[in-house]
Amino acid sequence: MLSKSQISFVNALHVKKNRKDLSLFLVEGVKSISEFLNSAFIVESIYCSSATLIKFSKLSPTVKFYEITDAELKKISTLTTPQDAVAIIRIPEKTPLRPESFKDRFTIILDGIQDPGNMGTIIRTADWFGFSEIICSEDTVEVYNPKVVQASMGSLSRVAVHYTDLSQLVSNSGIPVYGTLLAGVSIYETSFTEPGFIVLGNEGKGISYAVIPLITNQITIPRFGNAESLNVAISAAIVCSEIKRRGI
Amino acid sequence: MLSKSQISFVNALHVKKNRKDLSLFLVEGVKSISEFLNSAFIVESIYCSSATLIKFSKLSPTVKFYEITDAELKKISTLTTPQDAVAIIRIPEKTPLRPESFKDRFTIILDGIQDPGNMGTIIRTADWFGFSEIICSEDTVEVYNPKVVQASMGSLSRVAVHYTDLSQLVSNSGIPVYGTLLAGVSIYETSFTEPGFIVLGNEGKGISYAVIPLITNQITIPRFGNAESLNVAISAAIVCSEIKRRGI
Repeated sequence: MLSKSQISFVNALHVKKNRKDLSLFLVEGVKSISEFLNSAFIVESIYCSSATLIKFSKLSPTVKFYEITDAELKKISTLTTPQDAVAIIRIPEKTPLRPESFKDRFTIILDGIQDPGNMGTIIRTADWFGFSEIICSEDTVEVYNPKVVQASMGSLSRVAVHYTDLSQLVSNSGIPVYGTLLAGVSIYETSFTEPGFIVLGNEGKGISYAVIPLITNQITIPRFGNAESLNVAISAAIVCSEIKRRGI
Repeated sequence: MLSKSQISFVNALHVKKNRKDLSLFLVEGVKSISEFLNSAFIVESIYCSSATLIKFSKLSPTVKFYEITDAELKKISTLTTPQDAVAIIRIPEKTPLRPESFKDRFTIILDGIQDPGNMGTIIRTADWFGFSEIICSEDTVEVYNPKVVQASMGSLSRVAVHYTDLSQLVSNSGIPVYGTLLAGVSIYETSFTEPGFIVLGNEGKGISYAVIPLITNQITIPRFGNAESLNVAISAAIVCSEIKRRGI
């Protein structure tokens, strides 16, 4: 049985400030937690039933296990309908960006994405298409937000997410900066022969004024119907697919 | 000022059963409501401030207007952070499917999609790519669910959504049935020369057992990384883009 203070401790991690102060975040569900157990992330503790615990195939002895009831799970989960388990995982140390690698492969850049569902879906999609790194503007939604983690479906354990000043990063890069805008060159006609940054903008406002002038290749997903715009995670996916289709 | 019974009436439409019984649903935000005003849908009433009302360019005199305060908007909105207006719109009469048109263009089929955000995003994406019709299994999430309407960003005013028995529809069609599965032919290598159905399955379970045997062309979005699967709205978008890229 969990004490009141144990419940409070897990619940504190529902809040961004506490995640930052404690360098810890939450992952829910055996499937997602398993992917973090199989990664370089350090899983500190798992809260679930004994019946659920045996579903984890690789449990290191350093992982603390708390046996809890369904009622307790409901108390600590961030979800309205909780999954089977909650884990507390350590936020890794920030790793420096390696600008020398940017010219070798495409890198996704998120400029002010606010919706955690979109952010998580972009991480999952990047992982599917083999993009190992995402770089975000400082005002992009926090990657350890439970809704981001949830939507990433375990892919956050494999895709490195950095936050930095985009203008500075992009202006000094010396590589193509592909920006998704409404009036660019069709992605079907863009050559994508030279790897570069793929910039995706905020849900409402698009790419920020500071970054727009730094775009070297304006690209567009052609519209065949009447919707005013595409969801940003959808745009990211279509561009990733188009690049990979070319075998790049 | 709204009376208690007026507030109750709008709030009743937050619930599926009442939407069905009254043949009414809610749309929020000037932008989305405007798209319904410009469509064949009948907008019954709009709840907003006078300052917001003037933003509507095409207001028919048959639309009832209720001037409300921000506090009242909060009481009737389905959103945690309400937009600027709420409209009550009539659910149109069901139109019959036209099987003779199926061989002329690709039709999206949703087999048990449960997440309203995914459903709405698929409608928005279909609209962008010029797919005018979506056919859903009976157990797919209700299209007038406020979260579906919200995510469709007005595109529901242009894309026709039908519900029917999929096995019956598909088995009698005589056209290709492209099903997105994990072990099909790469979409990049599929010819898509003959229009047909594009079947997308449930978020967790995929395409249903009843429909799987009816698939004539198993297709797959190739995986280049490690994610176990793609979000269903992402899959729909990538397939739509790939078909349109070929100029079909």
